[in-house]
Amino acid sequence: MTVEEDQMRKPKYIQIVEYIKEKIAKGEWAIGDRIPSQRALAKLFDVNRSTVISALDELTADGLIEGKSGKGTVVIHNTWTLMGHTSSTNWNENIALGIHKASMETVQKINEAESENDLIQLSKGELSPDIFPLKKMRSVVRKVSDRLEPFGYEVPKGNLQLRQAISEYLKKAGIHASPSSILVVSGALQALHLISIGLLQKGSTVFLEKPSYLYSLSMFQSMGMDLKGLPMDGEGLVLSSIYQPKSKNSVLYTIPTFHNPTGKLMQEKRREELIQFCVKEQLPVIEDDVYRELWIDSPPPAPLKANDHHGNILYLGSLSKSLSPGLRIGWVVGSESVIDRLADLKMQSDYGSSTLSQQVAAEWLSSGLYEDHLLFVREQLKIRRGTALGALETYLSPYATWEIPKGGFFIWIKIKPAFQLRNLFQKALAKGILLNPGSIYAEQSGQSIRLSYAYASLEEINEGIFRLGEMIKNRE
Amino acid sequence: MTVEEDQMRKPKYIQIVEYIKEKIAKGEWAIGDRIPSQRALAKLFDVNRSTVISALDELTADGLIEGKSGKGTVVIHNTWTLMGHTSSTNWNENIALGIHKASMETVQKINEAESENDLIQLSKGELSPDIFPLKKMRSVVRKVSDRLEPFGYEVPKGNLQLRQAISEYLKKAGIHASPSSILVVSGALQALHLISIGLLQKGSTVFLEKPSYLYSLSMFQSMGMDLKGLPMDGEGLVLSSIYQPKSKNSVLYTIPTFHNPTGKLMQEKRREELIQFCVKEQLPVIEDDVYRELWIDSPPPAPLKANDHHGNILYLGSLSKSLSPGLRIGWVVGSESVIDRLADLKMQSDYGSSTLSQQVAAEWLSSGLYEDHLLFVREQLKIRRGTALGALETYLSPYATWEIPKGGFFIWIKIKPAFQLRNLFQKALAKGILLNPGSIYAEQSGQSIRLSYAYASLEEINEGIFRLGEMIKNRE
Repeated sequence: MTVEEDQMRKPKYIQIVEYIKEKIAKGEWAIGDRIPSQRALAKLFDVNRSTVISALDELTADGLIEGKSGKGTVVIHNTWTLMGHTSSTNWNENIALGIHKASMETVQKINEAESENDLIQLSKGELSPDIFPLKKMRSVVRKVSDRLEPFGYEVPKGNLQLRQAISEYLKKAGIHASPSSILVVSGALQALHLISIGLLQKGSTVFLEKPSYLYSLSMFQSMGMDLKGLPMDGEGLVLSSIYQPKSKNSVLYTIPTFHNPTGKLMQEKRREELIQFCVKEQLPVIEDDVYRELWIDSPPPAPLKANDHHGNILYLGSLSKSLSPGLRIGWVVGSESVIDRLADLKMQSDYGSSTLSQQVAAEWLSSGLYEDHLLFVREQLKIRRGTALGALETYLSPYATWEIPKGGFFIWIKIKPAFQLRNLFQKALAKGILLNPGSIYAEQSGQSIRLSYAYASLEEINEGIFRLGEMIKNRE
Repeated sequence: MTVEEDQMRKPKYIQIVEYIKEKIAKGEWAIGDRIPSQRALAKLFDVNRSTVISALDELTADGLIEGKSGKGTVVIHNTWTLMGHTSSTNWNENIALGIHKASMETVQKINEAESENDLIQLSKGELSPDIFPLKKMRSVVRKVSDRLEPFGYEVPKGNLQLRQAISEYLKKAGIHASPSSILVVSGALQALHLISIGLLQKGSTVFLEKPSYLYSLSMFQSMGMDLKGLPMDGEGLVLSSIYQPKSKNSVLYTIPTFHNPTGKLMQEKRREELIQFCVKEQLPVIEDDVYRELWIDSPPPAPLKANDHHGNILYLGSLSKSLSPGLRIGWVVGSESVIDRLADLKMQSDYGSSTLSQQVAAEWLSSGLYEDHLLFVREQLKIRRGTALGALETYLSPYATWEIPKGGFFIWIKIKPAFQLRNLFQKALAKGILLNPGSIYAEQSGQSIRLSYAYASLEEINEGIFRLGEMIKNRE
């Protein structure tokens, strides 16, 4: 008896159930898709509509489909999402409603659009391929391959040579950290993930600048943490705006150097005040310092961590912004017991980062090639910033204001009230320009734009800003 | 006024508080450490003991230290763990008490001992450096470096060339999966991490073999999942032991091929029954198939996934066991909507795996070098298994029983009741032998051993088993 014959012997309504289950399971009918009409199914299986209705009833009872008035019957689950359903809901239950949910959709749209080559990418927080040090990278990888020894699992905190190289490297920024107080991570984002699952808890208060990059990650909110946005002035975060930090579950997340998305640089005096304030209030600090090396005019003040005499600061650094995100190498520096805990969590989540990437990163840092490369990156960013500022001045000055960033990738542009457009992001996208609307960083008005001059070519930067100006001028 | 003078002006008790806080914060006094006695502190600061007591009272109120009767005063927190404290507790609250907690301590001890070079490593689930294909790996890395193009972030599911190579590779095992239904992960462990945070939820029931590798990971238990261990017979998992799978939050985790820790191989008939059972019961399955390629006598039956016509199985594979864990490359195969969800979680946790590792893995798979290498691995494992079985026969047959594994790394040894020793693991360690006691895999008796023949040299395997035999014979 063939499978098909076996199939034929089953009651028709079961055949229909199995047919639909298979379509759903294989993903041919995706969640949200409308399934064929009862009429069409009746015809396909050569049965009465009542037989089709029996089958659909069973699938509805199983939770796989749902009849929606005016929309026919749609797929709502497959066996896996059925299981994960409540979980997914839990995972997201604490994402603030309304504006924030919409932002997350925008973030997803941006992520998708970032792989479209015909768009002018004014959104990417990533260096242009033109700045990628291809020759040097090839030679570093070749060197690593020549020296390669059999490699297995790394120790929990990461490759020792790399941690030694990071320890040396950090000294230049005034941070004295032994390799045992450094954890290698797969980018600073992973550090935030580990902190969110291992150190914070549901109900923890996370103070942060508003707007902030952190708002664009659903991670913290989805774990049930309470984000409390604080205003910034020209010097950085406004300290007096932090109230009630006494809860033992509070933490401050800050990007003091070339802040994402505003490009702001926290001044030295404010840094000192912040350190003192946080020690006094026993408010632990996550210092996200991934843009440090991307200064254009002059080196930024020392990191907060350099003046942390109380082990109060967890410091995040990375090669993603300055060398390549594809290496997936970043680091966390903190007091040893916290680093031990994070290392344990890292082992539980991925058994450590790629040995090859770690060796390549170690070679970049210890050979001096990284420092050389940074000189080139800074030159290029200066040119790019100049082009962007020039175009803004020419095409956007009647309609918007901005500050000149002293480093990093971003110019934070505020459209003047009289010229604000609805759906700025979508309209720009329709004109072939991808940019990040302020709303994803919890900017209330939604009439700010984070414009990156790091990725697009000079021509594209100019053209993109021109089109933006035209769009606003013509109120399209 | 110098900092020191400033320091001197402060009341003595505050000086003591700050001194201790700094020691703790910098990790010089670790959590669990006893701080100096009141007498010693009084002497150090030239004050009365009452002043020291005031300082210690303040630190106790802050939650940093605690007086323990008979143990003096110990450090219990620093500012970071203070914050994370309740979180850590939550994270662990569902780890079963007693035996399981002890197991976790054993796991940590094993992890530490695995980097000690003077031990005979009969515990490592990892190929010996002697089997590492150094020449081939160098040439693959060199090839990748020659072909290197500027690289940034990868798409969420991972490098397309690698996913295509995995898709092709899986066909040989009878799995037909398009690249869009494959997610590249940093090892199979990361897949489990993503599943635990994204698809399962607190209270989900996870059916699994008992003993199982999964018990040695605190991950699932710590997320509040309920592990329900099922017995195995000579054919594999005993299906009739699965009861109440109807809950929508249940999942089956199985290692059907060269099971960890028992080495068992699920037979073809049992596989068919299992697939049917799980489809009928709508019980989703996680098939952990990381040992598949390590067959010694003959190829194992097709993976469950090869006969999954309902998208009911999430399939995990990896290069860690057969090539190198240091690459951190594994994969998950499932229906597209689930893979999309896991890819999104992966992006949220680390923005994807290392591009270099992915390119190197793609080259191994697509060049045919991986297949060549596997021939060598199987030969070597056959020799190693032979040595281990020979030594067991000679030195351990009066005291223990075992089955001959048909592949993989492990022999599961059961000490006969008359010869059971307390603290077998510690006693073996004292004799210079590191092995994994059955207790960490939730083996109730604790008188089983997972012995790996993959890592130690042939001489060490023989010597280790000899010492084990002596230990049991002499009841040491």
